[in-house]
Amino acid sequence: MAMNGVLRPGHAALRVLDLEEAVNFYGNVLGLQETGRDKQWRVYFKAWDERDHNSVVIREADKAGIDFFAFKVDGKKTLEKLDADLRAYGVSTERIPAGEMLETGERVRFQVPSGHMIELYAEKKDVGNGISYVNPDPWSAASEKGIAPTRLDHCLLYGPDIEKVQKLFEEVLGFYLVEHIVLEDNKTDLAIWLSTSIKAHDIAFVRHPEPGKLHHVAFLLDSWERVLRAADLMSMNHVSIDIGPTRHGVTRGTTIYAFDPSGNRFETFCGGYQTYPDHQPLKWTMDEVGTGIFYHDRKLNDRFLSVVT
Amino acid sequence: MAMNGVLRPGHAALRVLDLEEAVNFYGNVLGLQETGRDKQWRVYFKAWDERDHNSVVIREADKAGIDFFAFKVDGKKTLEKLDADLRAYGVSTERIPAGEMLETGERVRFQVPSGHMIELYAEKKDVGNGISYVNPDPWSAASEKGIAPTRLDHCLLYGPDIEKVQKLFEEVLGFYLVEHIVLEDNKTDLAIWLSTSIKAHDIAFVRHPEPGKLHHVAFLLDSWERVLRAADLMSMNHVSIDIGPTRHGVTRGTTIYAFDPSGNRFETFCGGYQTYPDHQPLKWTMDEVGTGIFYHDRKLNDRFLSVVT
Amino acid sequence: MAMNGVLRPGHAALRVLDLEEAVNFYGNVLGLQETGRDKQWRVYFKAWDERDHNSVVIREADKAGIDFFAFKVDGKKTLEKLDADLRAYGVSTERIPAGEMLETGERVRFQVPSGHMIELYAEKKDVGNGISYVNPDPWSAASEKGIAPTRLDHCLLYGPDIEKVQKLFEEVLGFYLVEHIVLEDNKTDLAIWLSTSIKAHDIAFVRHPEPGKLHHVAFLLDSWERVLRAADLMSMNHVSIDIGPTRHGVTRGTTIYAFDPSGNRFETFCGGYQTYPDHQPLKWTMDEVGTGIFYHDRKLNDRFLSVVT
Amino acid sequence: MAMNGVLRPGHAALRVLDLEEAVNFYGNVLGLQETGRDKQWRVYFKAWDERDHNSVVIREADKAGIDFFAFKVDGKKTLEKLDADLRAYGVSTERIPAGEMLETGERVRFQVPSGHMIELYAEKKDVGNGISYVNPDPWSAASEKGIAPTRLDHCLLYGPDIEKVQKLFEEVLGFYLVEHIVLEDNKTDLAIWLSTSIKAHDIAFVRHPEPGKLHHVAFLLDSWERVLRAADLMSMNHVSIDIGPTRHGVTRGTTIYAFDPSGNRFETFCGGYQTYPDHQPLKWTMDEVGTGIFYHDRKLNDRFLSVVT
Repeated sequence: MAMNGVLRPGHAALRVLDLEEAVNFYGNVLGLQETGRDKQWRVYFKAWDERDHNSVVIREADKAGIDFFAFKVDGKKTLEKLDADLRAYGVSTERIPAGEMLETGERVRFQVPSGHMIELYAEKKDVGNGISYVNPDPWSAASEKGIAPTRLDHCLLYGPDIEKVQKLFEEVLGFYLVEHIVLEDNKTDLAIWLSTSIKAHDIAFVRHPEPGKLHHVAFLLDSWERVLRAADLMSMNHVSIDIGPTRHGVTRGTTIYAFDPSGNRFETFCGGYQTYPDHQPLKWTMDEVGTGIFYHDRKLNDRFLSVVT
Repeated sequence: MAMNGVLRPGHAALRVLDLEEAVNFYGNVLGLQETGRDKQWRVYFKAWDERDHNSVVIREADKAGIDFFAFKVDGKKTLEKLDADLRAYGVSTERIPAGEMLETGERVRFQVPSGHMIELYAEKKDVGNGISYVNPDPWSAASEKGIAPTRLDHCLLYGPDIEKVQKLFEEVLGFYLVEHIVLEDNKTDLAIWLSTSIKAHDIAFVRHPEPGKLHHVAFLLDSWERVLRAADLMSMNHVSIDIGPTRHGVTRGTTIYAFDPSGNRFETFCGGYQTYPDHQPLKWTMDEVGTGIFYHDRKLNDRFLSVVT
Repeated sequence: MAMNGVLRPGHAALRVLDLEEAVNFYGNVLGLQETGRDKQWRVYFKAWDERDHNSVVIREADKAGIDFFAFKVDGKKTLEKLDADLRAYGVSTERIPAGEMLETGERVRFQVPSGHMIELYAEKKDVGNGISYVNPDPWSAASEKGIAPTRLDHCLLYGPDIEKVQKLFEEVLGFYLVEHIVLEDNKTDLAIWLSTSIKAHDIAFVRHPEPGKLHHVAFLLDSWERVLRAADLMSMNHVSIDIGPTRHGVTRGTTIYAFDPSGNRFETFCGGYQTYPDHQPLKWTMDEVGTGIFYHDRKLNDRFLSVVT
Repeated sequence: MAMNGVLRPGHAALRVLDLEEAVNFYGNVLGLQETGRDKQWRVYFKAWDERDHNSVVIREADKAGIDFFAFKVDGKKTLEKLDADLRAYGVSTERIPAGEMLETGERVRFQVPSGHMIELYAEKKDVGNGISYVNPDPWSAASEKGIAPTRLDHCLLYGPDIEKVQKLFEEVLGFYLVEHIVLEDNKTDLAIWLSTSIKAHDIAFVRHPEPGKLHHVAFLLDSWERVLRAADLMSMNHVSIDIGPTRHGVTRGTTIYAFDPSGNRFETFCGGYQTYPDHQPLKWTMDEVGTGIFYHDRKLNDRFLSVVT
């Protein structure tokens, strides 16, 4: 519960194969709002109900995938402290100056043992959610343009040494384990779901030989009916659906996995229980792993463990 | 975000006029699970998805209302620290020994300026949510017995000096202001909604001349369809509905207010956005207060400001 | 079940006090589609999923209310037969020539004992529902513009002699009684719900001294979540809500009653069971009439029996 | 629209491989109500909201599949007329005496060109839906026991000569075509959906070389949330899910296909538009047939066209 001052996922920086195709997808199909473009040709988006300037940043590259994933912390003092804590823990950190990303303050970047670049930052411009902060309506027309998730929610990353990742997130950043899948040896985790809040996950990892891979970035929807609407819009727009609508056993969330035009998997999901650090983590065993991931099918599809970017 | 270690609402102790009538109501109509009775004739309940032993405790009395409302903290060290912080802040605290409430550890009790008794505690027995912690199903038959909320969520209390209450909750307990209604003078708050998590409210207060009054205790439902089911069950059981199903402007939640057989108002609600301490609080002005409370009717009913227990 | 060839409600002709204000309301708030205007200054609308040219026709007048309510029949032969049957039954009929209403064939008009003008017609131009009839998508962007009901569903009319109306609808037009409210004498009906299909009502009547009055015209929504969305949009657009979201005991439907800017009540509702002519009609007694109308409140509001146009 | 007096699907007679296993499945998992057993060892069920004595009848056999599928007509006169019409049309009919099925009147049985046995009957005992016909509640506890569909809705049958079947259903029984899939020759139908009401389908056929096969029997649910609940219950009970939750392009319904323990496919679905005989049928072409059947996946799974009983 943000015991160490880490608030929430703040931005995901994704690589896409064709920028304008991706701009159309993220803007018109997924229904994020474009908030700016910078001199590096990066395009910035936010979900309609997010107040900060950006949560998804895309750039064109030869290979799809994720450049970095960032968390907002609760102030500059926390940022300094966590940077010091990371270095004391033995993690090299890099400072990215304020303004390197549009409307975003200084960032502390570091690599975790799974090979992913993680960032912390304390400041991003509040550009509003399109609804007045005085006497607000509950939603606006923007919530019905495209799939229109309310916000970036979490990501699932694939890479090695996830027990070291977990230790770092727990001991330095204050996250806690919510659910895990344990391999047949009954001690090695195949997958871990970590929270810095009362959300069932703020970030998750799956053990994988190749470092730095992206399984999916997830966006939150308000209801199971919005999940249906999302699936309908995917079909109308010929988005490639991986699986769904269905339910996860892990987190209980209802979900669709699909692919952006570059092959990056994304999730639009609803629900998941609320959890607390005093809750005993939920454990999945390999004989029920299919049920844990896809509760209705009770088995994994081939793509789940193999297709990453 | 639990910056000071306060996790969540843990229990509400309510007074009822007729114990067995109340046991029937809380057990069979609201659909909580009875978990015990003690020598003081108190009856203990928990919501189906809660893991700790109890969240609602009722006792028979001549007058309905609330005895105390408690928050769980993240450990005994935090409990000690917060007790010290409270005393340093000038608040008298009382220690209630472990076991005074069934399966509940030591509690630190104190009165806030609105006249309410608040408690903190670190330990309560994990009795499970009826679902295995290994390979769990997403729900169980218990989630369909009566209204069956997933948990105790928050309460709204009426009393004087709520600005002092807010200061105490913010400065000592680490809560933050999420929404508030400002009187015509544009500086005095009529009502405040406070969070110690990412929930839109963990506790709320309305300015009221008489101290220590209860407006409602709230229970969480998973969907708008569950809100409809709750209203249907209330009608089937001749529960007196105050208002709803409807939506709140404040928090965006969908809701029903109704009364237990003793006249204690309760809420069964769904949703409400997730919020963070870096979010600018939402402000409601008196000309739109009706819309803020009952978004569809756009006006308060007479009972909202006057009927409390 | 259309045994006599009467298919469904086809159009309601409403009087409004200010035409352009009403055009804005029906077009932008209720979210009907304007399909034409004629030389009598009437404005035509259809719901997005209706295929025929119009279902709501409005004209400016000094007094709000309903001019006539029409049913489509399954062909010109049926139209001729029903005209003959009506006259044989002792009802005077009038022929309105094709084209008097835009894109609408010849109409047979007659007055029922409650004082309302009813029409039958066999032909109206299929202008499509905005979705291809080949490989259609399940919905289109038009379903999210305003409240956007799928279609005109039924109306509730107030007037005298409803037992005579029932007899005419049953014996000549082939409708059947689905539900009724019986007065304290246990034989006189206060209200009757009649179907010519498997819908819980295609038309309904309440006994009332003044003839020819309109209680409401009803529009169908797809889900309880769409009912919530409708209520939200009403609030955003300062539409005066009579009651709801709530449930009817009669028909089980979930519902909102509200008023157009001229004071004509309308309903946006979802559900209601499907019924058949072999089903015994459901009966409501006066001591439970409140529950029958507003299932959650279990009592009528003052407006239900008195405010009509 | 029941122009010829055929009201609705009345019962499906299914063969199962193990009677008690099937009794457990249909009673406790699907949540039908057992209403009787006869001397032929057949077990009778009805859905909770159905009023007539039975809608599903099962018997143990060496091979799963469907024995016959029946429609209720609106009276004995209609039954006689339709029997005469069938014979005049060249169809042999057989009379099954009243009482051969429990609480069921005389049946007229005939084989259609696809090889299936179809029955008509006019009388079945009204045993109630568990809710009073006077001042009824909208639902009862029975609606939450197992998946608990509200009723038997339709079936999809596989066999040859479906154009002849269509002609018979249209010309003798008064059904009309709602949707169809046309083969690459743009004139031969692969599949037809037929209605005798305003439901998107009361029966459907797919062209298939082997006669008399069952693709699925379908049961109606009230909402997309009930579809999710059904999928959850299937997983909890290890029911084999074929596909879903998802949406059909055809009819727009939301759906799950799954298998009973004997391998008979069944569907639990919600929605589908309401239609009328004056509506131009919707047409699907072979290049979009996957989208028509499974709107989200946009392709058929292998089982859809091959696995029948």
